[in-house]
Amino acid sequence: MAGPAPAVAAARTAVRAALADLPAGSLVLVACSGGADSLALAAATAFVAPRAGLLGGAVVVDHRLRAGSDDVAREAAAACRALGLDPVQVRGVDVGGPGGPEAAARTARYAALEEAATETGAAAVLLGHTLDDQAETVLLRLGRGSGGRSLAGMAPAAGLWRRPLLGLRRRDTEAVCTALGLPWAEDPTNAPDGPWRRADGGPLRRSAVRHQVLPALTEALGPGVPEALARTARRLREDEDYLAAAAAELAARAGLPTPEGDAAEGGPGEVGLDVVVLARAHPALRGRVLHRAATAAGCPPGALTATHVAALEALVTDYRGQGPLSLPGAVTAGRRCGRLTFGRRGERGAGE
Amino acid sequence: MAGPAPAVAAARTAVRAALADLPAGSLVLVACSGGADSLALAAATAFVAPRAGLLGGAVVVDHRLRAGSDDVAREAAAACRALGLDPVQVRGVDVGGPGGPEAAARTARYAALEEAATETGAAAVLLGHTLDDQAETVLLRLGRGSGGRSLAGMAPAAGLWRRPLLGLRRRDTEAVCTALGLPWAEDPTNAPDGPWRRADGGPLRRSAVRHQVLPALTEALGPGVPEALARTARRLREDEDYLAAAAAELAARAGLPTPEGDAAEGGPGEVGLDVVVLARAHPALRGRVLHRAATAAGCPPGALTATHVAALEALVTDYRGQGPLSLPGAVTAGRRCGRLTFGRRGERGAGE
Repeated sequence: MAGPAPAVAAARTAVRAALADLPAGSLVLVACSGGADSLALAAATAFVAPRAGLLGGAVVVDHRLRAGSDDVAREAAAACRALGLDPVQVRGVDVGGPGGPEAAARTARYAALEEAATETGAAAVLLGHTLDDQAETVLLRLGRGSGGRSLAGMAPAAGLWRRPLLGLRRRDTEAVCTALGLPWAEDPTNAPDGPWRRADGGPLRRSAVRHQVLPALTEALGPGVPEALARTARRLREDEDYLAAAAAELAARAGLPTPEGDAAEGGPGEVGLDVVVLARAHPALRGRVLHRAATAAGCPPGALTATHVAALEALVTDYRGQGPLSLPGAVTAGRRCGRLTFGRRGERGAGE
Repeated sequence: MAGPAPAVAAARTAVRAALADLPAGSLVLVACSGGADSLALAAATAFVAPRAGLLGGAVVVDHRLRAGSDDVAREAAAACRALGLDPVQVRGVDVGGPGGPEAAARTARYAALEEAATETGAAAVLLGHTLDDQAETVLLRLGRGSGGRSLAGMAPAAGLWRRPLLGLRRRDTEAVCTALGLPWAEDPTNAPDGPWRRADGGPLRRSAVRHQVLPALTEALGPGVPEALARTARRLREDEDYLAAAAAELAARAGLPTPEGDAAEGGPGEVGLDVVVLARAHPALRGRVLHRAATAAGCPPGALTATHVAALEALVTDYRGQGPLSLPGAVTAGRRCGRLTFGRRGERGAGE
């Protein structure tokens, strides 16, 4: 008897490994767009889940950004049901809010998926990101210059989210669908000839990376570039895991209240750190602790730049009596009696 | 009295900072190609060195890859002398050896510079790499997938080598030359319209990254990409510095002889590591120690792939009696009596 096609077997193995730690009877939801990647994931999950003592369902998010998107969503849901997944939900969202169109769609999608998981009591939501998506993510984040944490790419597992297919190429997921006779939907922004620009002329960043940057990089460096980028992400994730643990240890020694707040005194937003402990620490850890302290005090993480962290660093290692800093989110930081103190603008207590 | 042009002041400040730790009377040599970057570096060094109690000289390497390269070298040397640098040497090299043409030229260049430094007793060789070169280096190394160590880019200071201009854009060095009336030579492989392919059709990787990949990345992500890449390199260098120190500490605990060999017993190439110590360590450090042990045993670092390191890792964390590994450089590695033992093929002692 012939076994399944190699791509089908690889997808099933990947899903099996990603679900191995879930207790029997857990429900997992596949986030399915109808594209080849998430349809392959749905098929593999429909096969693996019952054999692993799990329940497999699906959620289709209709972004309602294009005419006919409801038809695409209905067809994706029908395909998931035909695969045997149950429950299968379609959830429409309204894309808006801050950031570019890709960021807004992403925010709306994740919120809808989280809601579906809460309502159905699902233990995990499976996302169809592939090795190619990971490579694109690394390149997108390179443009931010925010270092290892961000370059480590998308996590294989983080909270509710699991990405079983990060080791498979996008073309492998197409091979899965072809082998199983599953017709998939093409995302028009994924077509090689566009539209990879928005109506206002701005770039659709991921599409531009996919169709312009990655081919140019492959042309310059030879084949294997997506795999190399994904390998880079894996290694940086491992490094970052170690560095984050070492930074957490330093933060505790410097007196930063833990996120659980058990060591916190004073009101929310009040954070103080021992300057001597920080000054003796390695800069790689100190930068992470300063970033963490600022966000604990109320700075929105996205608004905190390298320049802000460098100014905090100067309060620790190059203090010449400089006054308190104004940070995003109405947070102030200053040095007082051997402590780096964070507070809120308009309140007393930030180092004046 | 008007001060120097901003770019000239920036270059001088950068050179001053890069030389601050050198004892009075030291000789520093500028590696000058006659291009804008290294000519700007030569001009800044000629200004800064005497004011800092240092001697400034220059070396021009003639790669002899193109007709007329000796004229370019002679002109660059004349420009360095006119700036007041002394001694100024021209050294011809024969480019050959392994790797692509860029790697071979690089190897020959560094050897010639090192020789010049030895002969003249120079304390440092200054290289004209700019922020743009650093950004290109990060992208070139991304294609290898070898993680943070490699992505950290070129070091601002490493042994004999110093790169004072890593914070300046290439166009800043052109502004320096223009402000000082210094005509510079254009490297034909740097021209935007090529030739950025070799005669055999292979890509000149750096040129392709410069003229194809970076523009595509800027188009996709917006301006500021080179700065973001350089910032990434700086942060990863800081992280790598911390991780390397932690790995060295783990290596010592696991029993890896130090590079100085004071703990080494047995002949060269014989290395043994405590498996229990390694198994308990964080994978980010373990991978670094395994890589280091394999190269200490004689593996050429460039030939050691992620697959080799993963197989070593399996001997530590997933041992099911598998036999010894064959590694590049005729090195073998196996597990014996709770130790991971490296040896040479054809000698006894590698875990059989």
